[in-house]
Amino acid sequence: MGTVTAPWKQLLLNALESNSHLKHSSYVQLATIGSNGRPSNRSVVFRGFHENSDNILINTDTRTRKVEELKHCPFSEICWYFTDSWEQFRINGRIDIIDGSNPDSEKLQIREKSWFASSPRSRLQYLGPYPGLPQLSEEPQETSVDPSAGPVSEFCLLVLDPEQVDYLNLKTNKRLMFTSTQSQIGEKCWTSERINP
Amino acid sequence: MGTVTAPWKQLLLNALESNSHLKHSSYVQLATIGSNGRPSNRSVVFRGFHENSDNILINTDTRTRKVEELKHCPFSEICWYFTDSWEQFRINGRIDIIDGSNPDSEKLQIREKSWFASSPRSRLQYLGPYPGLPQLSEEPQETSVDPSAGPVSEFCLLVLDPEQVDYLNLKTNKRLMFTSTQSQIGEKCWTSERINP
Repeated sequence: MGTVTAPWKQLLLNALESNSHLKHSSYVQLATIGSNGRPSNRSVVFRGFHENSDNILINTDTRTRKVEELKHCPFSEICWYFTDSWEQFRINGRIDIIDGSNPDSEKLQIREKSWFASSPRSRLQYLGPYPGLPQLSEEPQETSVDPSAGPVSEFCLLVLDPEQVDYLNLKTNKRLMFTSTQSQIGEKCWTSERINP
Repeated sequence: MGTVTAPWKQLLLNALESNSHLKHSSYVQLATIGSNGRPSNRSVVFRGFHENSDNILINTDTRTRKVEELKHCPFSEICWYFTDSWEQFRINGRIDIIDGSNPDSEKLQIREKSWFASSPRSRLQYLGPYPGLPQLSEEPQETSVDPSAGPVSEFCLLVLDPEQVDYLNLKTNKRLMFTSTQSQIGEKCWTSERINP
């Protein structure tokens, strides 16, 4: 049976709530396809859902390899394991890359909002040297960001639009597969099925 | 400068030691390329290194999707985040699939050793219904495994041979890239470089 709101979202919100005492509960592993055709996998921070949707927000630096990789192949799977409640969410979908050059003013507003929602400390990261290049200097860069200044050009917002969610509870051994389809009027509909763990 | 023993292995052993009070410290996220060409990502359990090598052992069920995926594309990246020491290891390499039909008797012995090293409880998993298929019965299967019996046909050992390791320490912001090359006599040599986080 299809529903219009994502039925896995409440499970995820519950898991976030019951694991909220752990700083790392918002850390997820994001898999992409590397330029060499091999899998690539790293931890990123979940920055919430976009408004009332089930779209997942992730901040990153335009200069990181994942942005390059997502330009070639926009698909990704997040693996999110909650260490206290023993729940795993595998969230598969397409990622929209929103950098400062995006022509869509509405998307640029979402990017700006995510910039101001991040801490001054995490905003500083985007002023650091090019990620992944050989480190030339030992000294930490003494820089500061004007708290009222908008996003720097290195700041990039990733928006993951989930298409399939594989939920596993290791305490109860319950596993559910959530699959989305597009309705005739373009609305996303979700169905779920209990599958063997 | 090249070395013959993997220089990242000691860092990993230290991280395992300093996070050993956490049950989930042996859980890693394994990314593969799905049959549809999209990334696939799930948690698996690190079962140690093969003898004195830097090859990583993972047990799985031959019927899971990852085995099918690895047959098409043997490359994988593990993302391993240690929640107490704030260290991340991204381990990229090729995976050798060792199931019961493997023609190499030495590999079959490694598989058997890994079977007996796993708990009776985890051995039971391989007798369960086909993973990922719709669940037909609510009742838990009442089965048992003879503790002296060798591996069942569903038991499969994955051996990851690392080629590149990207290490990041979030407490010190230190990032190191370890890259392997083959020497002329076929020995694996590792070099490391400090790179920007």
